Amino acid sequence: MNSSCGSRIKALRKNFGSHHVDGILFSNMSNIRYLSGFTGSDGVLILSSDHAILLVDGRYATQAEAESKIASVHPYQNKMEGIEQGIAKLGIKEIGFEAGHISMETFQDLSRRLEGKGFVPLGDPLRFLRARKDKNEIAVMKKAASIGSAAINALIREIKIGWTEKEAALHLEMIARRGGADQIAFETIFASGAHSALPHAKPTNRKVQKGDFVVIDFGVRYQGYCSDETCTVAFGELTGDQKNAYRAVRQAHDESIGSVKAGTAAADVDALTRRVLGKKYRDYFVHGTGHGVGLEVHEAPRLAPNSPDALAEGMVVTIEPGLYYPGAWGIRIEDTVVVNKNGCDVITKMDKGLIIIE
Amino acid sequence: MNSSCGSRIKALRKNFGSHHVDGILFSNMSNIRYLSGFTGSDGVLILSSDHAILLVDGRYATQAEAESKIASVHPYQNKMEGIEQGIAKLGIKEIGFEAGHISMETFQDLSRRLEGKGFVPLGDPLRFLRARKDKNEIAVMKKAASIGSAAINALIREIKIGWTEKEAALHLEMIARRGGADQIAFETIFASGAHSALPHAKPTNRKVQKGDFVVIDFGVRYQGYCSDETCTVAFGELTGDQKNAYRAVRQAHDESIGSVKAGTAAADVDALTRRVLGKKYRDYFVHGTGHGVGLEVHEAPRLAPNSPDALAEGMVVTIEPGLYYPGAWGIRIEDTVVVNKNGCDVITKMDKGLIIIE
Repeated sequence: MNSSCGSRIKALRKNFGSHHVDGILFSNMSNIRYLSGFTGSDGVLILSSDHAILLVDGRYATQAEAESKIASVHPYQNKMEGIEQGIAKLGIKEIGFEAGHISMETFQDLSRRLEGKGFVPLGDPLRFLRARKDKNEIAVMKKAASIGSAAINALIREIKIGWTEKEAALHLEMIARRGGADQIAFETIFASGAHSALPHAKPTNRKVQKGDFVVIDFGVRYQGYCSDETCTVAFGELTGDQKNAYRAVRQAHDESIGSVKAGTAAADVDALTRRVLGKKYRDYFVHGTGHGVGLEVHEAPRLAPNSPDALAEGMVVTIEPGLYYPGAWGIRIEDTVVVNKNGCDVITKMDKGLIIIE
Repeated sequence: MNSSCGSRIKALRKNFGSHHVDGILFSNMSNIRYLSGFTGSDGVLILSSDHAILLVDGRYATQAEAESKIASVHPYQNKMEGIEQGIAKLGIKEIGFEAGHISMETFQDLSRRLEGKGFVPLGDPLRFLRARKDKNEIAVMKKAASIGSAAINALIREIKIGWTEKEAALHLEMIARRGGADQIAFETIFASGAHSALPHAKPTNRKVQKGDFVVIDFGVRYQGYCSDETCTVAFGELTGDQKNAYRAVRQAHDESIGSVKAGTAAADVDALTRRVLGKKYRDYFVHGTGHGVGLEVHEAPRLAPNSPDALAEGMVVTIEPGLYYPGAWGIRIEDTVVVNKNGCDVITKMDKGLIIIE
């Protein structure tokens, strides 16, 4: 991973000129991991045009030394003091920072400490770099996706009417962890009956019943990278309305995936999803069509109305149309795909045909 | 929970005058949950002196309506626009915000949108309020602690030399989830041998061996609240040095807990811990003595050198001295306690005597 870190830092330094900086301070831990290999939960990375300093607190000193080969590790007693000294040591005059991540409080403190230096607010300087995954990252993400899909598949083979949502979610997570997942990537959604109409339902003690749609939205973390997949399965009989709605979401999902390729505007994929859902359904689709996935489960690009992003080779994005009828039921179908020149590779592995469990 | 929300908001509004505001904007989700009952992962709460608006995106509209009785729920298309409209609707002129939580980018966007309004950066306006738990919160936290302790106890009874760290961590989490935990509160630490010298080690495929110290730092989340406890157990024979070190940490732990009561300075508890560890050990204690626990696993107060905090009745804090010898071994012993007038109640339940597993 550390050779990738070197080339990422090189690519980033090429942008120093256009950012009007001679150094950048990172506090977003995913960005720090991406650039340095350090996997801790707290720290600061300062890059100048020829050096890098990784500031960590005492708890992380040994780990940081072991993980990061590209930066010299400086343990600090007081983080703000450490940053002040690090910037001075590297002789940085115009320092860029992640404006969407650094808090007002930290900004004010640093401004006081570093009077005379230029502070340059940057949108996430790694947004585009991190969005396009390299071969190693894609290999890791395929493995993550396959662990997640295998777990969903195993759950669906075992689950029966009468299981509680909590039991099912726990069982799913256990299968995935035994299958090689380091952790889950986000709180598992296993939402049955009326709960399936809540896009972000938490598992409850409700028992799965005949006539339920169950939305299973599940992701694992593997070597730092996330997977993200959603299946909606049915228990027993469905009504004609439910079957038609499932068909509509499936069609929106399939056609959207069919439209993904390098160069396409992310907003156009979202618009297509809404067009395919049509007048009858689109008002019940209450979120965006998808998002990038990587070290974070939600990262660039954004596939939504008004998104300024364009898809590019190597981006890994979700396509996840859904319908939500509050108090009644909901459906979501989601795959994760890798964008390539002429289309995309679907890396999540569950078949999205309607599964009815008796 | 919603009657607690009402009295919390009442207490907060009493401070509007001293903050020089007639409203506060909250974006920290733990603060929003504390004040409104809403448990989602994204949203904004705006309080004026007589109204409250909870802004959520479309995914959370139904859930927010169900969970929050104290605020009117406004779904937004664009968050910044929603905030602008909410503040206008409530007629707020001087709006406070969480300076340690709001990003520079958000601050700049809001400043542009709300020209003419006063923006007042506040330290966390709930820091002290949230630090002191009420009876209901303490009851929930006791339950969380007992689920966590029971899981550690069950693991220790089953584990044998040869288990991998990952297997053990997974097993521990599964026991806790089956025991009633909603989730784990933080990534489980099960660090054996030289890994025990890393305060924040992640579980690996290393197998537990004879002569190992194993540091188990584990917490569950139950009804939103976290537990936090650390046991260090030994496998097979220990050296005299290891036994002496364990005794020293145990003594520091016990004496620190003995010193906890309402009115004591948090920095004094930390100083006592270091004094008891003494010259021989204190340089190997690389973190603070403890921290508050609640809706977040780390919250106010801070028990560390230079902490300005004083302990108060109802605070729930950890006491967790440790020693770390890089490349060799480490020890940490941690309990969570509720501060009361004359001392404290230890709510984590594992006995901290040295356990040697053959």
